[in-house]
Amino acid sequence: MTINIGVIGTGAIGADHARRISKTLIGGKIVAVNDVNISQAQSLVDELGLSATIHNSGHDLIHDDGVDAVLVTSWGPTHEEFVVAAINAGKYVFCEKPLATSAQGCRNIIEAEMQAQKRLVQVGFMRPYDSGYLQLKNAIDSGLIGEPLIVHCAHRNPSVPDTYHTPMAIHDTLIHELDVLRWLLNDEFVSAQVVFPRKTKYAHSALADPQIVLLETKKGVRIDVEVFVNCQYGYDIQCSVVGEEGIANLPEPQSLLLRKEAKLSNDILMDWKDRFIAAYDVELQAFINGISNNKLTGPSAWDGMAASIASDACVKAQQSQQIEPITMPEQPAFYR
Amino acid sequence: MTINIGVIGTGAIGADHARRISKTLIGGKIVAVNDVNISQAQSLVDELGLSATIHNSGHDLIHDDGVDAVLVTSWGPTHEEFVVAAINAGKYVFCEKPLATSAQGCRNIIEAEMQAQKRLVQVGFMRPYDSGYLQLKNAIDSGLIGEPLIVHCAHRNPSVPDTYHTPMAIHDTLIHELDVLRWLLNDEFVSAQVVFPRKTKYAHSALADPQIVLLETKKGVRIDVEVFVNCQYGYDIQCSVVGEEGIANLPEPQSLLLRKEAKLSNDILMDWKDRFIAAYDVELQAFINGISNNKLTGPSAWDGMAASIASDACVKAQQSQQIEPITMPEQPAFYR
Amino acid sequence: MTINIGVIGTGAIGADHARRISKTLIGGKIVAVNDVNISQAQSLVDELGLSATIHNSGHDLIHDDGVDAVLVTSWGPTHEEFVVAAINAGKYVFCEKPLATSAQGCRNIIEAEMQAQKRLVQVGFMRPYDSGYLQLKNAIDSGLIGEPLIVHCAHRNPSVPDTYHTPMAIHDTLIHELDVLRWLLNDEFVSAQVVFPRKTKYAHSALADPQIVLLETKKGVRIDVEVFVNCQYGYDIQCSVVGEEGIANLPEPQSLLLRKEAKLSNDILMDWKDRFIAAYDVELQAFINGISNNKLTGPSAWDGMAASIASDACVKAQQSQQIEPITMPEQPAFYR
Amino acid sequence: MTINIGVIGTGAIGADHARRISKTLIGGKIVAVNDVNISQAQSLVDELGLSATIHNSGHDLIHDDGVDAVLVTSWGPTHEEFVVAAINAGKYVFCEKPLATSAQGCRNIIEAEMQAQKRLVQVGFMRPYDSGYLQLKNAIDSGLIGEPLIVHCAHRNPSVPDTYHTPMAIHDTLIHELDVLRWLLNDEFVSAQVVFPRKTKYAHSALADPQIVLLETKKGVRIDVEVFVNCQYGYDIQCSVVGEEGIANLPEPQSLLLRKEAKLSNDILMDWKDRFIAAYDVELQAFINGISNNKLTGPSAWDGMAASIASDACVKAQQSQQIEPITMPEQPAFYR
Repeated sequence: MTINIGVIGTGAIGADHARRISKTLIGGKIVAVNDVNISQAQSLVDELGLSATIHNSGHDLIHDDGVDAVLVTSWGPTHEEFVVAAINAGKYVFCEKPLATSAQGCRNIIEAEMQAQKRLVQVGFMRPYDSGYLQLKNAIDSGLIGEPLIVHCAHRNPSVPDTYHTPMAIHDTLIHELDVLRWLLNDEFVSAQVVFPRKTKYAHSALADPQIVLLETKKGVRIDVEVFVNCQYGYDIQCSVVGEEGIANLPEPQSLLLRKEAKLSNDILMDWKDRFIAAYDVELQAFINGISNNKLTGPSAWDGMAASIASDACVKAQQSQQIEPITMPEQPAFYR
Repeated sequence: MTINIGVIGTGAIGADHARRISKTLIGGKIVAVNDVNISQAQSLVDELGLSATIHNSGHDLIHDDGVDAVLVTSWGPTHEEFVVAAINAGKYVFCEKPLATSAQGCRNIIEAEMQAQKRLVQVGFMRPYDSGYLQLKNAIDSGLIGEPLIVHCAHRNPSVPDTYHTPMAIHDTLIHELDVLRWLLNDEFVSAQVVFPRKTKYAHSALADPQIVLLETKKGVRIDVEVFVNCQYGYDIQCSVVGEEGIANLPEPQSLLLRKEAKLSNDILMDWKDRFIAAYDVELQAFINGISNNKLTGPSAWDGMAASIASDACVKAQQSQQIEPITMPEQPAFYR
Repeated sequence: MTINIGVIGTGAIGADHARRISKTLIGGKIVAVNDVNISQAQSLVDELGLSATIHNSGHDLIHDDGVDAVLVTSWGPTHEEFVVAAINAGKYVFCEKPLATSAQGCRNIIEAEMQAQKRLVQVGFMRPYDSGYLQLKNAIDSGLIGEPLIVHCAHRNPSVPDTYHTPMAIHDTLIHELDVLRWLLNDEFVSAQVVFPRKTKYAHSALADPQIVLLETKKGVRIDVEVFVNCQYGYDIQCSVVGEEGIANLPEPQSLLLRKEAKLSNDILMDWKDRFIAAYDVELQAFINGISNNKLTGPSAWDGMAASIASDACVKAQQSQQIEPITMPEQPAFYR
Repeated sequence: MTINIGVIGTGAIGADHARRISKTLIGGKIVAVNDVNISQAQSLVDELGLSATIHNSGHDLIHDDGVDAVLVTSWGPTHEEFVVAAINAGKYVFCEKPLATSAQGCRNIIEAEMQAQKRLVQVGFMRPYDSGYLQLKNAIDSGLIGEPLIVHCAHRNPSVPDTYHTPMAIHDTLIHELDVLRWLLNDEFVSAQVVFPRKTKYAHSALADPQIVLLETKKGVRIDVEVFVNCQYGYDIQCSVVGEEGIANLPEPQSLLLRKEAKLSNDILMDWKDRFIAAYDVELQAFINGISNNKLTGPSAWDGMAASIASDACVKAQQSQQIEPITMPEQPAFYR
């Protein structure tokens, strides 16, 4: 059984996903596309040699009877509208982050989905599909390191453009940790604090860089995340889970061990796009398989909302320089 | 365009490849199967829910008009016969190692293929599709470490059954190095020597273990391969290329870095099947893609023969305890 | 020129230092000993075959004309008294940590030393003499990683006895970081915060374990120190300095890389005494050499006081769960 | 008790050892020096502020009644003469490698020493005093990795001067492995083979570089040593012992782990003098302590001869390109 998929938004990530589905993954087929820039949609159809309808609007695409599932990869502020429309049309929908630009937007999606009485939404958080994080989760869940007590994380980029400002360290960067840590620890955040270390000379004036975000969970786990987006040396994601009986570290990406020019070295990636490239495949294959099995298992609308609520609290903590509570509503049975 | 594939031999590796094609890879479809044990073929069809013809003989399968390409995963001694038949029927054929049980058998296949005036055969050497070896080859080809001068290798298994005897260290174990090193170095072997170190107490009486195989190439590169199949501690593949300006090591398989019980450790695999699991997917996808593009690029019948010739010389060197020449015929333009 | 040394307190650390001076180091000689337990002092003299006077009191030892320099390795609460007496007698004095049990006690020592118009005191902080920390300091001072912005530390012990309670995580454990970080960064602390993660089941009821201590320096560097004294797996000291252009990590202690039982591993030390064993030699040799050169260069009384002030603030932060200021007086030229 | 030491030969290594004894080690004192260049001997006396007699000849120094022990650090061809003279004078003697320039010369020394009925000679092989090799030996002797079966070694220098020719790869470079491996394995060599890989472009015309030396021991252990003296990237000593139950690797020298410029790296040493710098101290302290205890324990004249015999066989194997036997005489009880 092939899943017929429509793509709303054929920019960088939308085009990548369309390529994946057409060239790498199994069980899915792009049958419809839409973009605010119709010629861009056309180019993608041409490039991939698709026999796909080019729709004039996302809503037309959603209501195309030939479309079983929708990929929402359009501009962030349009996500909520298309996701809700897809749910209301009874269609599966994969939505790139953010699920919505506000916690309220997420809540609207959740309401729609619960009304549909069926999980239809997968949010595009890819880290839970990364082989390294999966090994780390397995170490925790199997009891290998005992109960987790502390998590030390770092999220480092070589540099960011001038348009990147202080709150984006949360919304665009930390957001991945906010999702993956809930999943990794099977736990919820209860508070956030942000401290600003001495600023690197490589950050422009509108950006506090680096930052340290301190999170506390319901079970009492303490998390520190160093967010450092002008670290110069590489795109480097670190995660070290300190348990009662041992400590497990996220594996470094595989690379040659080299002896050259007085150094014993492994390469560090410079481009974030290379870091989780395999995870994007696994993530989207899981979406297709979930539809085939009539049971989505990936990051849910609830997870999207949780990340959004935590994210808002962290931004507040940046501004207040206080410890800010993170208040998550009780998770309904529907999402457990 | 979907490639319709027939599988001759539905034992462990045949079944695995069928599962891959049906569940993981794109562009191929199992449409016919055959096994000396018909009920085993039937079980596979049932398990995978295939709509596939079960043929009474490999030859029937090969001549099935619905079959575009053949997987030969039957018992080794039958490979030559089925591969030649497939070639003669003008069909693409993926043959698990060994291509044939003798160098003469390989030559027969090469003759048939050259007569067909088209590369139709891919041999099941998977290491050139492993991401680690690809990084290593890239380090060499890009000049990162200068011209290669020496290669140190190890091929270690935790243990082998009692049926495993001294020459199998070449035919079944070293064979992978014999293939991958030619590809890695873009070079040919010219001589082989085998030395037998002190024997481990874990080897049974009919087996010399460990062994060290010393190879010389046309360009003068010297290779030492430690073959140690009762090393107890793990399945461990090492390859270190010493170049004029640096040394590159095959990456270790990705694993968690763990601090526990007075050890800072990474896991070593125990099961060889886990080591190149991803490479099997890539290898077979390359076969399917090669057919789609009408151009096979993987290990050829020539490569199969080269490994077979080198392998025979190594076994002779085990027995003679002398340096034995490895005489490769001139490579015809057809295979370059 | 041999320095004649008297030892006040011949318990574990005093005896170790006496052994060092007699058997390993150059330029010093134990000529006098004292202990509240005279027979213990006698045993040490016998064991080392010393020709040393056994004094009935520390003060007698200090005033022994044959004694050039004094080692104070007696019970903590007696340190201040003996150090001040040694200073007043114009003698060099090496005092094990703590320099005094209160910041006021440290101030008294500083006053005495400044009145003596000569640096006479070295405090027994050994980490600045560890080869790993020296490499780390060199990386910072040479500009290799740019200006330091963040330091991530961990101080982990496998387990502690039942007598170890929450404030000891500061006084006995963190104290080493409080000293070494000032030296490493050439900076002063300005505030401290302590957070208590979920407690390990291996900690007894009177102990919060692990703890995370957050420090801020004058230059704005942010430091997080995980103190985890029942971590089970080893004695593990981590220090990672995040600079503007790179990150440098304290080296792991040298150990064999082992492939065994499905693990690629290095040993982690279990006993803290093994971790800085070489640094104790270097530290004490530096004291002897400093006397010979008439210029002490190691951790000063001022450094002892600074650690004491920071330590008091951290204990206060444990109790208040607030960010507590650390107020260091202006450093007089005498100590620069 | 202080050992009064005379130094014959105050060139680089002689001066270094004199500095060690005067400034770092305990229990020894330089009381006499000699050099063919008297003014060089005088300079050393001045530099170190020694009250030492400057002798006109090595023999005068040896017969100086104030001299308890002699360091022979003169030009290689003079070693035999001075060592024999020291033995005949009943004095302890530390001789830098080579013990003599021929196996016969070593035999003469052994004869003299056996006649003296007392071990008086220590040869300047420092690797058995290196902390890494000691850990490796401990792993073997404790049975941690089971019986050793294979040893893989590498001895790499960044570059060598034009005066360095092919046999020096044995006499000057491999000589250290020839000594340390006998000690490590507690075994004797029985044969040697040398193969010449493709030559690096960085080697001048009179030098085959790299070389691979294959050794076999009495117990059947097979050893391969890559000698590569123009490897460009560093001074790198590797030793990996493959045992029946595991593999232990010589630790890398301690260095910072650095994240910088897209590399996760440790430094590799470039200068051989830095590699075993601590071992030289331990080696010479052992000599002094051995004299004090009236029992030398380090590399003996027998060990010096064993290395010399093996070395000669390896040079022969370079020339013959055959497997050459290494014939060691039976070790007399005196040296066991």
